[in-house]
Amino acid sequence: MSKYDIIVLGSGPGGYVAAIRASQLGLKTAVIEKSELGGICLNWGCIPTKALLKSAQVFEYLKHAEDYGLKVEGADYDFDAIVKRSRGVADGMSKGVQFLMKKNKIDIISGYGKLKPGKKIDVDGTEYSANNIIIATGARSRELPSLPQDGKKVIGYREAMSLPKQPKKLIVVGSGAIGVEFADFYNSIGTEVTIVEYLPNVVPVEDKDVSKLLERSFTKKGIKIMTSAEVTSVDTSGDGVKAHVKTSKGEEILEADVVLSAVGIKSNIENIGLEDVGIVVDRDKIIVNDFYQTNIPGYFAIGDVTPGQALAHVASAEGILCVEKIAGEHVEALDYGNIPGCTYCTPEIASVGLTEQQAKDKGIDIKVGKFPFLASGKASAGGNKEGFVKVIFDAKYGEWIGCHMIGAGVTDMVAEAVVARKLETTGHEILKAVHPHPTMSEAIMEAVADAYDECIHI
Amino acid sequence: MSKYDIIVLGSGPGGYVAAIRASQLGLKTAVIEKSELGGICLNWGCIPTKALLKSAQVFEYLKHAEDYGLKVEGADYDFDAIVKRSRGVADGMSKGVQFLMKKNKIDIISGYGKLKPGKKIDVDGTEYSANNIIIATGARSRELPSLPQDGKKVIGYREAMSLPKQPKKLIVVGSGAIGVEFADFYNSIGTEVTIVEYLPNVVPVEDKDVSKLLERSFTKKGIKIMTSAEVTSVDTSGDGVKAHVKTSKGEEILEADVVLSAVGIKSNIENIGLEDVGIVVDRDKIIVNDFYQTNIPGYFAIGDVTPGQALAHVASAEGILCVEKIAGEHVEALDYGNIPGCTYCTPEIASVGLTEQQAKDKGIDIKVGKFPFLASGKASAGGNKEGFVKVIFDAKYGEWIGCHMIGAGVTDMVAEAVVARKLETTGHEILKAVHPHPTMSEAIMEAVADAYDECIHI
Repeated sequence: MSKYDIIVLGSGPGGYVAAIRASQLGLKTAVIEKSELGGICLNWGCIPTKALLKSAQVFEYLKHAEDYGLKVEGADYDFDAIVKRSRGVADGMSKGVQFLMKKNKIDIISGYGKLKPGKKIDVDGTEYSANNIIIATGARSRELPSLPQDGKKVIGYREAMSLPKQPKKLIVVGSGAIGVEFADFYNSIGTEVTIVEYLPNVVPVEDKDVSKLLERSFTKKGIKIMTSAEVTSVDTSGDGVKAHVKTSKGEEILEADVVLSAVGIKSNIENIGLEDVGIVVDRDKIIVNDFYQTNIPGYFAIGDVTPGQALAHVASAEGILCVEKIAGEHVEALDYGNIPGCTYCTPEIASVGLTEQQAKDKGIDIKVGKFPFLASGKASAGGNKEGFVKVIFDAKYGEWIGCHMIGAGVTDMVAEAVVARKLETTGHEILKAVHPHPTMSEAIMEAVADAYDECIHI
Repeated sequence: MSKYDIIVLGSGPGGYVAAIRASQLGLKTAVIEKSELGGICLNWGCIPTKALLKSAQVFEYLKHAEDYGLKVEGADYDFDAIVKRSRGVADGMSKGVQFLMKKNKIDIISGYGKLKPGKKIDVDGTEYSANNIIIATGARSRELPSLPQDGKKVIGYREAMSLPKQPKKLIVVGSGAIGVEFADFYNSIGTEVTIVEYLPNVVPVEDKDVSKLLERSFTKKGIKIMTSAEVTSVDTSGDGVKAHVKTSKGEEILEADVVLSAVGIKSNIENIGLEDVGIVVDRDKIIVNDFYQTNIPGYFAIGDVTPGQALAHVASAEGILCVEKIAGEHVEALDYGNIPGCTYCTPEIASVGLTEQQAKDKGIDIKVGKFPFLASGKASAGGNKEGFVKVIFDAKYGEWIGCHMIGAGVTDMVAEAVVARKLETTGHEILKAVHPHPTMSEAIMEAVADAYDECIHI
């Protein structure tokens, strides 16, 4: 029986990152994976979807080449080639993780791992033992009883990124990041897309101004949006799918080739031995302390199976912290209030901290600033005038409590807000940090200036 | 005779921004402009060049559409349309400044302003008076005696962005930001481009690793690069231009249609009355104190006519500070060590702080970290694997002393480093600020991790 300092169950962005950090800290480490190294993120999530969206973005340039003084004939897309490129990018990344495992001398144990009492794991009949076990089994697409997934006509994100044939008509149920990214991708290549959102706004976790602009932008592109609407049942008996949608105006029946269910995720906590060990869960989340220890000593959990935001970067950060704590390093608990969220449709969305509504609901006296890209020189030059940066400050203490952005490239701009908030900035300090001209990032400085009535360009 | 609190001479990014801030602070303000509102930056610099480069970037997508699973039968460019788009963007921005002047109740005085003693300015025969005069006359393309500009065959940046006809062969003398941006643009649309650089590296102010990667990238694209080379004379007598280039291997004669001289700038300090007032200059720079006051009370100078970096964002920041100080606000002097620089060729370049060589020359014990975009998931998905982020920390105190980036979108990423340095970050704080996944900005976090031997993905 092999004995490790750490065994990680699951090789997603939580698990493989935890394993690498453990190895850096001198711990003998193994990672157990039943499927592809890299987990959902690399293979069926973050990475391949960004590849699809990049193809869509370039296709938009082809369609609008004339706007840039260019001429193009016979612009078309090859659905199979787009999907193939995306799969190739995912495969490359997965191989990259394999390389990193080898470089860091981490054992890869292929198979289905099941926790046993006494800090042991059974992998398809072979038992492994470790001083510390980290559960990082992630999550899968959540299934609604009204919307059972058959993988053909009613699908989850996984099938959506590798369909054998492009659907002519697609219904996307749920307008979180996954939903709107696929809606945008398929719309861009000519699929007729309808989004059905249960809540009153699309991307409902975002600031309302962001939701409103995205809805306007998507509608302009031809995506049909139904909010405060619910798919009550689907009928897959015919050629396509018939979805019964309940709205405030009554019931409507939508026809499509495919329905994508994008209504959130469900943690993978079943059949991994949690009960045998006696690890406590609440609904579908494993309960952990600030450093990811479960109620049973020696068993830890990170990533989507724990209550924090179900995001790859959260899982990675948790994995690093968890391992550093195990190794006896001095670590601070993660600040879940300073986790950025990104959505990669066009226009992109990025945000961190409280929305205006959340701040108001907490009774905080706020200063709000907003700067539209319409007034940005770089945005004009780049043809990216859609969108804005909105910032929210605590009026009394000057604390930067929220930053909400929609527009080209904002997913790469939000790190400034994350770092500045981490460093406990005030608005004044952002204002006096000279942002380069001409950039989209100036919009952050200008939005902050607007909050203090010092905005130059509006 | 109209009397103002503040008159600004010149409406570039220094002048118009100063005027707006002055108006916000309740000061009666006028701005004098002999040409287009917005100065070089908006009309003949930052903005229209970014428009040209965007067309080039989209054209590259057209040429490489297949890489993204797309098909194009015929892709071409329309030189006139590209230039027209660029001019349109510039005109739009200039009109924007006009709107801002009106909105802020700033008088625009059109004409040629000349300083007079007693805080007066003569504008084409009419005299204006102010409590404070701010000189913001900017700069123009520097002419070398060996390379006199005739505006046709030997040109500066201004002509380069509005040529009536695309040159078949272009020689670019000087490889600073302006030089390499035009080299990249013209190469992209099929002009045969040669860069002649006097120093041993292209983009010589950047970190050497950045220079080397850009040289490799440009060479691969077909741009010919001659470093440690000097144009000693040009012969414009025939159909085209013959440039005599001295290199370590001897003299070479290059033929071209046009030579672009991009060897820096020269301040506009002539014929504006500096001598009449007795304002002290050193070479071509007006000497000012920390708050932009010249040796003569009531006369201030900002932007390219002063010794700071000749960059639009520096001019704007100086303008704001100068006016806030005049208005009696509590202000801190600008930190010229924390000014970012951006170059918008492909791959883009952005940097702030000391290069590795500069840090070593100062005898600082440093930690260097580097992360290649090759190892970034977002870069793979986007087809942007070229480039890297390099960070330099003071080994003793953990101060972030330099950040150097080359790759897609880095000009929007450098603000993070500027803000973090402003907030006196340590490497550890950047590491523990959760950057969103998948983004290019993660490369900053990973480069910092590399400096502390904690990098996950290499």
